[in-house]
Amino acid sequence: MENKLGKWGFNNGDLKEKSLFSIRSVLETIMENLKEDDERVPIHLGRGDPSSIPCFRTSPVAEDAIFGAVRSAKFNGYAPAVGIYSARRSVAEYLSHDLPNHVSPDDVFLTPGANHAIEVVMSVLARPGANILFPKPGYPFYDARAACSNLEVRHFDLLPEKGWEVDLKSVEALVDDRTIAIVIINPGNPCGNVFTSEHLQEIAETAKKLGILVIADEVYSHLCFGSKPFVPMGVFGSITPILTLGSISKRWIVPGWRLGWIAMVDPSGVLKKSGIAECLQNYLEYSANPATIVQACLTMYRGAVPHILEKTTKEFFSNINNVLKEAVDAFYTKVQEIPCFICPYKPEGAMSMMIKLNLSLLVGINDDMDFCAKLAHEESVIILPGVIVGLKNWLRLTFAMEPAILEEGLDRIKAFYLRHSKVKGL
Amino acid sequence: MENKLGKWGFNNGDLKEKSLFSIRSVLETIMENLKEDDERVPIHLGRGDPSSIPCFRTSPVAEDAIFGAVRSAKFNGYAPAVGIYSARRSVAEYLSHDLPNHVSPDDVFLTPGANHAIEVVMSVLARPGANILFPKPGYPFYDARAACSNLEVRHFDLLPEKGWEVDLKSVEALVDDRTIAIVIINPGNPCGNVFTSEHLQEIAETAKKLGILVIADEVYSHLCFGSKPFVPMGVFGSITPILTLGSISKRWIVPGWRLGWIAMVDPSGVLKKSGIAECLQNYLEYSANPATIVQACLTMYRGAVPHILEKTTKEFFSNINNVLKEAVDAFYTKVQEIPCFICPYKPEGAMSMMIKLNLSLLVGINDDMDFCAKLAHEESVIILPGVIVGLKNWLRLTFAMEPAILEEGLDRIKAFYLRHSKVKGL
Repeated sequence: MENKLGKWGFNNGDLKEKSLFSIRSVLETIMENLKEDDERVPIHLGRGDPSSIPCFRTSPVAEDAIFGAVRSAKFNGYAPAVGIYSARRSVAEYLSHDLPNHVSPDDVFLTPGANHAIEVVMSVLARPGANILFPKPGYPFYDARAACSNLEVRHFDLLPEKGWEVDLKSVEALVDDRTIAIVIINPGNPCGNVFTSEHLQEIAETAKKLGILVIADEVYSHLCFGSKPFVPMGVFGSITPILTLGSISKRWIVPGWRLGWIAMVDPSGVLKKSGIAECLQNYLEYSANPATIVQACLTMYRGAVPHILEKTTKEFFSNINNVLKEAVDAFYTKVQEIPCFICPYKPEGAMSMMIKLNLSLLVGINDDMDFCAKLAHEESVIILPGVIVGLKNWLRLTFAMEPAILEEGLDRIKAFYLRHSKVKGL
Repeated sequence: MENKLGKWGFNNGDLKEKSLFSIRSVLETIMENLKEDDERVPIHLGRGDPSSIPCFRTSPVAEDAIFGAVRSAKFNGYAPAVGIYSARRSVAEYLSHDLPNHVSPDDVFLTPGANHAIEVVMSVLARPGANILFPKPGYPFYDARAACSNLEVRHFDLLPEKGWEVDLKSVEALVDDRTIAIVIINPGNPCGNVFTSEHLQEIAETAKKLGILVIADEVYSHLCFGSKPFVPMGVFGSITPILTLGSISKRWIVPGWRLGWIAMVDPSGVLKKSGIAECLQNYLEYSANPATIVQACLTMYRGAVPHILEKTTKEFFSNINNVLKEAVDAFYTKVQEIPCFICPYKPEGAMSMMIKLNLSLLVGINDDMDFCAKLAHEESVIILPGVIVGLKNWLRLTFAMEPAILEEGLDRIKAFYLRHSKVKGL
């Protein structure tokens, strides 16, 4: 038996061999460097998940929605593969609110989290010989899922000196007649940038000119606390068809609940005519579904209790954005005090920022991965090496954190810098 | 834009072209035949989901477990890809209770439902040139997922005259040196049969002799109400390695909650040595995860409140089995009164049974699909054509239903038979 199974080579086909790592697995590797005898509490600045922090606790409306769904006993059974209709309708209305054109419930597909939405879209778009454009830096789950579907990936640059805007020239240089789509992440993960309406329009017009589809990752939608408002890419859906990916994970701070969506914002009906809409539906038929009791949060399941998209208070949202703004203000100031950190942009959205590592100021640190491993070991601070999001010798730091802990984290990083600095006696 | 997307042929690669349909989509097609002006309530005998029926309401322990998880605010964040450790430990203990060898928490992977467990296992086992053995009749999701992974499928027979036991001779005839595994569903879907311990041991010994892995689908575990107790395949894990697939969907009647598992029952460690264990983990890293608040039901999240696997009362389980037994008793008797139904076996487990259609007694009915479409149209009764589970001109009927509705359903089927019978004036 052993020999017969062994012959198939079950270690092949591993994404690790292609140097594709999930953020989760890299953070786990870095956490292996934590010293057990360090009495300080580890500080996690590696991940966009502040759900365990009291000031980021989800809205009571969301909790009540789950209670109501379970108590009703109406959401224990199987749901349609594309999601419960009333929940799809709620998402359609929620999105339409910010759009010039109405999104129909039939244009919305529910998924177990936005990661699964990425899987669905990459799997459906993958065709032999096709390629797709991803931002650099970006979100590595895209690369992994494209690799799983044998879809060739080409990376275009985001420009730090221009507030991480898309380098549209590099986009045009990458495209050929086998390019199928471009992914835009706004508000930006990992850069914390927010695109202006003008820039979004430029992107849409470039996509139209090049004949490619726009996939708009808006998982961090509405988490904007700078001068720029959140503008959905779908505003420009009449220029070029858009697949918008969203989720309740970030705005309601419940990433573990696994509920996301794919919405077709496509007034001209190109996605239906090309067959993509039907392919999305077919894929979902044989794929994982979100828990019904979570879908029910989006559903007006009793006359008196509307869904979380409508009933979550403005105060909840503005409070979260205020906390993020205060955190980023304090963080940005304090980061400047660490000489080996170069910080080209102060975030205006989402939960993380990119910082360039000036290795020439440090002794005995080989690269960003080495920096993060040693930092975890010596200071019990966990941050994500930039190489994982596409920029070697950069770092991705999450600022969605209690201010006191953020400050403590940066103090520890400063101590680490001083210990490894070329210039002693600072 | 339109032309450029159109050229990729997005209607290709569709499983429907390979005549692979999900049970869900076929039932939806059949339901399109329902007459809008039929004032009778449609009766659904097509699907193993009795969750909306009051006597099948889930245990209050399960509902309380969700409330507790949400209220604690400890389960809103991301979980590890393989599942929350304490939930994996609970499943390991739950399974170990019925096994001679202990299953370790590390041997358990949580998935969003057992369907996703099937996806994970099929994707991981698929190798170029490999084939896998599925039962006929069976569960079509296996065929669809094998097709998605380009894994060749070979079907062995279940023998109706032997209580739907596996035809081990047909298994041996199908195997070659490219056969990687065999799938066993016990208690049986769609046949409602329960395998004896002796038969399971024969299967394990055959698998050992042939050098193939056993995938034991035990989604309906413990739903046994005949003379035979439920024996997990893992009891014979020392003969040959077993991948056990399970779920809370059927025993707790919450299929919408999407929580299942893959457990390696493999005392000799073949699955680890061959690399399959690591491949399963890697696949989960890039794949959908179950909602944390549902995983929490399996978790001792507060000292005083143990998980549903331990705290659900015996009365809840025995009540469900009693309801199923009463339903099947009444159903089986009543089915005999319909001359065109041939019923080789009275179910002892699970929620459905297979009935052979004697088309020679009917006029104007072409096949099982035609029978189901016309039955829906004329009598508002929905049943699943057997062709979908591998047996043309059979039917799969679910008996997990309120007795009065079951009776009404069979009365309507009888009226349908009389209307289409060759012999008039019965």
